[in-house]
Amino acid sequence: MKYGIVAFPSKKVQDFANSYRKRYDPHYSLITPHMTIKGVFEADENEIKIIAEKVENVLKKHTPFSLNTSKVSSFAPVTNALYLNINPTEELVSLHDDLNSIEYNDVESYTFVPHITIAQKLSATEHDDIYPQLKMIGVDFEEMIDRLHLLYQLEDGSWTVYETFRLAGDE
Amino acid sequence: MKYGIVAFPSKKVQDFANSYRKRYDPHYSLITPHMTIKGVFEADENEIKIIAEKVENVLKKHTPFSLNTSKVSSFAPVTNALYLNINPTEELVSLHDDLNSIEYNDVESYTFVPHITIAQKLSATEHDDIYPQLKMIGVDFEEMIDRLHLLYQLEDGSWTVYETFRLAGDE
Repeated sequence: MKYGIVAFPSKKVQDFANSYRKRYDPHYSLITPHMTIKGVFEADENEIKIIAEKVENVLKKHTPFSLNTSKVSSFAPVTNALYLNINPTEELVSLHDDLNSIEYNDVESYTFVPHITIAQKLSATEHDDIYPQLKMIGVDFEEMIDRLHLLYQLEDGSWTVYETFRLAGDE
Repeated sequence: MKYGIVAFPSKKVQDFANSYRKRYDPHYSLITPHMTIKGVFEADENEIKIIAEKVENVLKKHTPFSLNTSKVSSFAPVTNALYLNINPTEELVSLHDDLNSIEYNDVESYTFVPHITIAQKLSATEHDDIYPQLKMIGVDFEEMIDRLHLLYQLEDGSWTVYETFRLAGDE
């Protein structure tokens, strides 16, 4: 089964992201707007219990963090996707690093660029048409994230929550 | 903001339900297959924190329960919807009752018929066409549910998880 770990921003940010995703993101109906902290990995039902326990232990050492967005950016030319750029604060990067130090059945090889996708799988023409417009809009959200969610994927591609973890900040 | 409390069955049951929902349920893309335990209610951001605490306190007194489905049933003539009938075991009914004894900003007036919707908003013709077929299929799922999820609804109608509660069975 496929799993991933994400943060869902507030309703306000999700509604904002969805106003673009509705038109520009083919994953619109598979998952609500989110920031991925641990990308897709495989686990069976026994493995996920062990992993979930480790995740819980890592997360309870972390405190809630501030999510700040400043602008719309693009992953082109790697891929024609647009996203809300999230400030890679020290807390967020350390949360990501700690979470990715757990052993999953994968190798995460890409650099962590915290973001909320608002458009993807665009054609080059669409991308070059939309990006200059979206770059101009103000995207000044600032809010606290105090929980992460472990999700799993169904056969049709949609994602369901398996567990919620609070950032309790025990240490 | 609109909230609700549900249980998500296993991936196996969700995939099964989705094979029908895909065709017959216009809410297919708004939420993955679920059993509603506490129907939609309104709360603002402060109220929900208090409610969530109460929910947590209620749920930690309950143990995981067995979810058993036996057949496909219909809500017609009240509404042209089909669902996987879930056995209203004593544990499940008591969980529902305890959860609904919390004060929400609503009056839940309907009887609790535990179910997983697989088709809704059917025309009368569609309903009468599909129901006899679906009544024939075997739907013998049995599994343990050890957690419930508090969800909230976005402007586009889709649902996001706010919190997961374990049925810890403290008492």
